[in-house]
Amino acid sequence: MGAHYEALLAHLKEISNIRNAAALLSYDQETAMPPGGAASRAQQLSTLSKIGHEMFTSGKTSELLNAAAEEVTSEDYDSDAASMVRVVQEDYAEATKLPSDFVADLSRETSLAHATWAKARQDKDFKAFLPALERIIGMMQKQADLIGYEDHPYDALLGQYERGMTTAQVRDIFDAQRPKLVDLISAISEATPVDDSMLKQPFDRDKQRDFALEVVKAYGFDFERGAQAQAVHPFCTSFSVNDVRITTRFNDNWLNPALFGMMHESGHGMYNQGIGQNLEGTPLAEGTSLGVHESQSRMWENIVGRSKGFWSWALPKLQETFPQLNDVSLDDFYKAVNKVERSFIRVEADEATYNLHIILRFELEQDLLTGAIKVADVRDAWNDKFNAFFGMTPPDDALGVLQDVHWSGGLFGYFATYALGNLLSVQYYNEALKAHPSIPDEIANGQFNTLLTWLNQNIHQHGRKYTGDELTRRITGEGIQSDSYIQYLTEKFGGIYGL
Amino acid sequence: MGAHYEALLAHLKEISNIRNAAALLSYDQETAMPPGGAASRAQQLSTLSKIGHEMFTSGKTSELLNAAAEEVTSEDYDSDAASMVRVVQEDYAEATKLPSDFVADLSRETSLAHATWAKARQDKDFKAFLPALERIIGMMQKQADLIGYEDHPYDALLGQYERGMTTAQVRDIFDAQRPKLVDLISAISEATPVDDSMLKQPFDRDKQRDFALEVVKAYGFDFERGAQAQAVHPFCTSFSVNDVRITTRFNDNWLNPALFGMMHESGHGMYNQGIGQNLEGTPLAEGTSLGVHESQSRMWENIVGRSKGFWSWALPKLQETFPQLNDVSLDDFYKAVNKVERSFIRVEADEATYNLHIILRFELEQDLLTGAIKVADVRDAWNDKFNAFFGMTPPDDALGVLQDVHWSGGLFGYFATYALGNLLSVQYYNEALKAHPSIPDEIANGQFNTLLTWLNQNIHQHGRKYTGDELTRRITGEGIQSDSYIQYLTEKFGGIYGL
Repeated sequence: MGAHYEALLAHLKEISNIRNAAALLSYDQETAMPPGGAASRAQQLSTLSKIGHEMFTSGKTSELLNAAAEEVTSEDYDSDAASMVRVVQEDYAEATKLPSDFVADLSRETSLAHATWAKARQDKDFKAFLPALERIIGMMQKQADLIGYEDHPYDALLGQYERGMTTAQVRDIFDAQRPKLVDLISAISEATPVDDSMLKQPFDRDKQRDFALEVVKAYGFDFERGAQAQAVHPFCTSFSVNDVRITTRFNDNWLNPALFGMMHESGHGMYNQGIGQNLEGTPLAEGTSLGVHESQSRMWENIVGRSKGFWSWALPKLQETFPQLNDVSLDDFYKAVNKVERSFIRVEADEATYNLHIILRFELEQDLLTGAIKVADVRDAWNDKFNAFFGMTPPDDALGVLQDVHWSGGLFGYFATYALGNLLSVQYYNEALKAHPSIPDEIANGQFNTLLTWLNQNIHQHGRKYTGDELTRRITGEGIQSDSYIQYLTEKFGGIYGL
Repeated sequence: MGAHYEALLAHLKEISNIRNAAALLSYDQETAMPPGGAASRAQQLSTLSKIGHEMFTSGKTSELLNAAAEEVTSEDYDSDAASMVRVVQEDYAEATKLPSDFVADLSRETSLAHATWAKARQDKDFKAFLPALERIIGMMQKQADLIGYEDHPYDALLGQYERGMTTAQVRDIFDAQRPKLVDLISAISEATPVDDSMLKQPFDRDKQRDFALEVVKAYGFDFERGAQAQAVHPFCTSFSVNDVRITTRFNDNWLNPALFGMMHESGHGMYNQGIGQNLEGTPLAEGTSLGVHESQSRMWENIVGRSKGFWSWALPKLQETFPQLNDVSLDDFYKAVNKVERSFIRVEADEATYNLHIILRFELEQDLLTGAIKVADVRDAWNDKFNAFFGMTPPDDALGVLQDVHWSGGLFGYFATYALGNLLSVQYYNEALKAHPSIPDEIANGQFNTLLTWLNQNIHQHGRKYTGDELTRRITGEGIQSDSYIQYLTEKFGGIYGL
């Protein structure tokens, strides 16, 4: 490549170094930092955010981008260089809309709000979180105005996580699936309930960890280039394609959170580890959108990890670890890990009800941004809507409006991507099956390499070269849609519940 | 304070935020990072070092310093503002001697060298580390030249850790104690050996951790403002006076490394936690010199933690944790933890032989800097000198020249401070005793607050306001000297070995 492109790359790598350092500060905050560190950590994150933002939005970036753009005009669309210039030009246009001071303020505010939210959730006290939430939503409204939008302020925020996607598109997709979800859940609720009591008994924490680590190692998560730690709210992050961290929450009396949580995070983690080494240290070395990212975690958690084939391989190993499960049959265990139940907590929701949780937040967030719901009223609005969707009302704020970390982090527009990820997980998996019909049999033998390699080649390696929509059309020949997901749910739960 | 001083402070706090972020990156590298992360971490550290150095050595710092200096002329020498300007002026004069590129190169080189050293030590293969060590010593020579010195290049490097101290002063102090140490060790070697076999048997790792945590909590290390993690080479670091981390190495078959290591690091940790909140987030929120820092760790590890009074309180608790020690008497246990023995590994050396290890490195480092010893020959030079000092030759490089992390980190001039810390620990403790003769009785009752409060008031709270020499003279009325330390050793080991 030409000298201008190389100079651009060196500059972008410095900025990535700062952003990756900031990501480590956030990771440490969630996994290891003592309570006293919160205030100084907020200052440190604020400074790094500000410096990273200033460096990226500087005239230097613009000059290097323009000079490099001329050098790469003859390069293929798919090439590293053309992709880098194209995507970074978009990033630059977006980032220059936000003043550095705003970025620094938002970073500090959200870093501090995290501790406030965590304590409020612990105390089940929405009012304790309200002042911070009001400040953050005020900043979200400002951010939407700064970024700009045609139709709805939510568009501006959604676009940060799903480049090019609009609120109206998401609404159409959600509207198409919602009645079918409601019908399915209704039919299931009239069927004979599944017994999952064997999952809810004491399980030694270290043994839970050992077993889950064994599973994600078999999946292909690489511990030479990754690590696992404990966190209150599980997540995956990376500071390099060769340094990817997954985190886990343990429940001493319930197998699911740690086990399926670790499968989930390893799906994110294998995406990050699968990004091409050619993109390492650059702004393209990330997942291309949160929906595509979530498609990977949900595939490994649900399509693989909650399949009967998987458990035909894994249940005997689990029984070795926990002899208290020795009398459980494969069929009963498979049904138990797929039990459908209206419940309060999104992260613990089954596949059938999960997207309803997302639609609830999607609707509330839009109304919070426009002011149609006042922040002080969002707890009541949540409870009312929850009752309308699920026919029950959260008994306290920890099981309701305070359950998720996202709002404290200023992550508005983010939730929709979880539901999109569910849809994409099935669309992509169906394509993998077309290419390799042997995948289900391999999974039943504890072999996951064919699937992972297909995901590496078709999705992971590209990093952010393509938008989520471009990538989905390259792989499936169509855009995101909910039909495949509904069909998957109908077949799976039809079988389990005899519908 | 005036507007210029406030502007200076805001600028310095931003720089401190970057440096504290870099410290977290290093901490994570030692405690949690997977092997694959080494290369990207080196890049991240290099970028942060460079930015921090550029911001500090910028014209802006100079202008703000000059303007603030005029504002604080009427302030007391001891005031925060006068101290800030005075110390930062010195820092600035020093830092501007080093070009940013040199700082970034050194950061990257040493970050990469760490993994090379760790592997070489594991493989006991000095030659595998040699190329990295040659590059680093070349950079150390360049650094000494850039900083400048009158007498010896070691002066320039030593001054980074002990402001204002010269190689000649250290040599005088070391020369004064060396023959007395040799005499003492010689006398001990002729006495009846101590049996410490009870310390070398299987001890459950989790129980070791729990017991050591109980001890350092009792000491006063604050886990609301600090945390503990595992590391190959134990250390203490902080990212805020309210976020201090100590690390521990465990040996499944030897009680000492984790137990006394945790006492040691908590001594450093309590220094960091004791720095005045008024200095939080500024360049003064650090220990004033490494010697003074080490005086705190050695005091809690040795003077307190290896005293008979301490064990009269702690041994029954240890026996509850490890019933295998039930038959051990206080007298035998006290002797065991104070066993004097010529050994290869500095960090595991007893109080009597420890400083000889330091004198060895002090002499070798001087010769490496001048080129009197070629880097390729330093393994042989180490082994020869070790034999001359201790009468035995390291059987492999892991027990010899590769044992310490410091050279891989470019920390030349650092070792001397360990021995200075030993001397200061006794000088300070003697002053605490004069002020509070009840301290030994309190220790024997598991009460450590009087001692910690005295240290807080006389040492910790001041951060870097005073140099090590200023501080020592304020507290003791004299400078650093070895007589008190030799007297302490002579009395203690005279008692134990019946000399």
